[in-house]
Amino acid sequence: MNQINRVAIVGGTHGNELTGIYLVKNFERAPQKIARSTFETVTLLANPKAYEIGKRYVETDLNRCFQIQDLSNSSLKSYEALRAKEIYQLIGTGGSQQADIVIDLHSTTSNMGLTLILVSLDPFNLRLAAYLTSINPNVKVLYSALKNEINPHLDSICKFGCTLEVGAVANGVLDASLFQQTEALVYAILDYLEACNQGMSPAIKEPLTIYQSAQIIDYPRNELGELQAMIHPQLQFRDYQAMQPGDPMFLTFEGEAIAYEGESTVYPVFINEAAYYEKGIAMYLTEKHQLTI
Amino acid sequence: MNQINRVAIVGGTHGNELTGIYLVKNFERAPQKIARSTFETVTLLANPKAYEIGKRYVETDLNRCFQIQDLSNSSLKSYEALRAKEIYQLIGTGGSQQADIVIDLHSTTSNMGLTLILVSLDPFNLRLAAYLTSINPNVKVLYSALKNEINPHLDSICKFGCTLEVGAVANGVLDASLFQQTEALVYAILDYLEACNQGMSPAIKEPLTIYQSAQIIDYPRNELGELQAMIHPQLQFRDYQAMQPGDPMFLTFEGEAIAYEGESTVYPVFINEAAYYEKGIAMYLTEKHQLTI
Repeated sequence: MNQINRVAIVGGTHGNELTGIYLVKNFERAPQKIARSTFETVTLLANPKAYEIGKRYVETDLNRCFQIQDLSNSSLKSYEALRAKEIYQLIGTGGSQQADIVIDLHSTTSNMGLTLILVSLDPFNLRLAAYLTSINPNVKVLYSALKNEINPHLDSICKFGCTLEVGAVANGVLDASLFQQTEALVYAILDYLEACNQGMSPAIKEPLTIYQSAQIIDYPRNELGELQAMIHPQLQFRDYQAMQPGDPMFLTFEGEAIAYEGESTVYPVFINEAAYYEKGIAMYLTEKHQLTI
Repeated sequence: MNQINRVAIVGGTHGNELTGIYLVKNFERAPQKIARSTFETVTLLANPKAYEIGKRYVETDLNRCFQIQDLSNSSLKSYEALRAKEIYQLIGTGGSQQADIVIDLHSTTSNMGLTLILVSLDPFNLRLAAYLTSINPNVKVLYSALKNEINPHLDSICKFGCTLEVGAVANGVLDASLFQQTEALVYAILDYLEACNQGMSPAIKEPLTIYQSAQIIDYPRNELGELQAMIHPQLQFRDYQAMQPGDPMFLTFEGEAIAYEGESTVYPVFINEAAYYEKGIAMYLTEKHQLTI
């Protein structure tokens, strides 16, 4: 068993995702809420400057700055590149307040409900995921790493890590219901880690359903890169629901539907996430797997 | 009857409200869609720099820059103050392409559905509003001017003007259904103006229901101005629905409900609009009136 000595709860990796930011502020005002007997819990507001200006980031997306070669690249000098190094040297493996697990709190304009994004399919992560889905059947588990991708996310800098991604909620907005559900999930994770540290094995439900990213789909664009279509109304807010070949995926500005032309059933996620327009991502297509741990 | 010679359709007064921006782009690619026989239609992307950076504004809210004394104040030099003067000198009364009516296309994170915001209760505006509600019963009509307020909005710079405010949609996101419904409303307005110019009086449904702003409610804050509570889940997305004294309005971060303590039934609008956090507005309370025109 892995003993957990320090847990880091991070909010505001994106400055306009208020759920995590206000949860962290709230935990800092009332630290007893996240205190447990067998480990220390620390909190961090990851991108305070972006929060101040009400944007996702100042110069570049902080949550793409944590690839290990970038963290040791002294030529990277953007606000976020420097902040990533600071955060790594603080709570990352080998850092001054090294955490064994980091929980990074995000929100999304996509209808992702309560999503736990896993860094890896390590048995520790899978058991945690299975525990959370067993106490709250609304929790979805996403493994979003694409093949050959080196993880650039903040949740990769500790031995264990995960991201809570909740939505749909607009950027710059607090949704009280999602706030409370996210808060409850944080406590559930802390309670689980406490139980494990105490030698208990909390009951988990099996098999575990995992959505695994398989493909990125961009919006239809013209030669200048301009959007030619929107998410189809029949797909909007239908994250994690089956999409069959032939189902409508986009709607052009002239009102014509564009169908999904794949060969198998897929489960789209991050449909119409605001921050992904500039990244060339209209949605991720995932495959649904059942895992026995 | 007022002959309409030129109509201005404006999008992107706020740079992160994509519905209006993409409608204007679309109209510019296919001007026949907004051409009518008895008047000229012009389009304008109001705040292109804010659109480029994906923000509501660059330095200050453009849609608060159109008070007549500000338009003639040469000491105001922010990007938006200068842009407001340019726009006024272009399509405003007396401008080089003076429009008789301006339609300003906005979106909101509040669940405002399809809202027509009126600049004044002028009979021309009221008849237009009654026409739109008669062809689409989902259209709501809001008269948002508070007492003693000089209108600072773009829709005030022509003889007639209105704002279409659609939601709920996150900033930086296109919602295809709202896009198409807004597009249909624009065509309905143009068709109505064309019919009036041709001496016809399109049938209207009476009485007209109008929601009139009566009061601004801010979030509960501490002495530093920091939020102490969120919109209560039972109020979230319930714009235009009756709120009675004693109904829950806010939820503190500790989970305590705060009730509405007024003395009469009100109809909240702009509940949880992202851009209004910094303006100290959690919602507007409106009164519901029935008008016979």
